[in-house]
Amino acid sequence: MLTNVEHIGIAVKDMAASNELFTKLLNIAPYKSESVESEGVLTSFFKVNETKIELLEASNPASAIAKFIEKKGEGIHHIAFEVDDILAEMKRLEAEGFVLLNAEPKLGADNKLVCFLHPKSSNGVLVELCQERR
Amino acid sequence: MLTNVEHIGIAVKDMAASNELFTKLLNIAPYKSESVESEGVLTSFFKVNETKIELLEASNPASAIAKFIEKKGEGIHHIAFEVDDILAEMKRLEAEGFVLLNAEPKLGADNKLVCFLHPKSSNGVLVELCQERR
Repeated sequence: MLTNVEHIGIAVKDMAASNELFTKLLNIAPYKSESVESEGVLTSFFKVNETKIELLEASNPASAIAKFIEKKGEGIHHIAFEVDDILAEMKRLEAEGFVLLNAEPKLGADNKLVCFLHPKSSNGVLVELCQERR
Repeated sequence: MLTNVEHIGIAVKDMAASNELFTKLLNIAPYKSESVESEGVLTSFFKVNETKIELLEASNPASAIAKFIEKKGEGIHHIAFEVDDILAEMKRLEAEGFVLLNAEPKLGADNKLVCFLHPKSSNGVLVELCQERR
C-alpha cells in the first residue's frame, strides 16, 4: 500500500544556492543534509507537513542527477511514495506492468529501502517506493 | 505560510489511459474529475494521505499543458503548496525575488485560489500556491 507522498526530489546544480532559495520559498530551514555515496548525490531535506522536499546535487559526474540536469536542466526529479511493505509493492507493481529499475530494494537516503519505477512505464514520472528501514 | 504539499500536477496525453495507469500505481481510483475551462485542462484527482495527485490533460491545443507536453513530454508538471493566506504569501515571495505568473490570485481547480511562480525564479520548479476559496 502507498500510504503517503514521502518526498519530492528536486535536481539542483548548486546546493548552497538552492538551499538558500528553498529556505526563502518554504520559509523554513533545511533540517538535514546527507551524502549518499552509492548514488553519487548530496541531499538536503526540508519538511512541509508530512512531505519532505529533497534537494539533490550530483557529487560525481556519472550520477543519475548529473545526467538528468544535463538533459533536462534543474527541476522536479522524482516523487517518492511511502509504502508499508516494499517487497509486496514491488511484486504487485511488476505484475501490473510497471518496470522496476532495481530488482531488489536498495538503501537510499534517510534510512530508507527504496525501489524506482522506470518513467517509461509510469507516464514519464520517475516514481520511488520507499520504506523505513527497520 | 506553506502548510502542506496540497497536490502534485502531472501532465498526461490521454486521460483515460493515465487514469487507468495511476489507478494501478496507487491502487486506488480517482475520486473526482473536473474541467477548468479558463486553463484549457481536464483534471482527475487521486488522494494519497494529505496530498492529491492531479492528472492534467490539455482540452485545447493552446493550453499550458499542451505546450508543456510538446516541449518536455508527459511527466511531473508542478508542485502545489497549500497556503493559509495567499495574498500574504504572494507579497512575501515577490519581495524575496520570486516571479509571480499572475499578479492576482485566480480561480483554479478544486475550488482554490491559486498563484504560480515562474520556474526560472524557483530552480526550474513550477510552484503553485493555493488556498481554499472561502
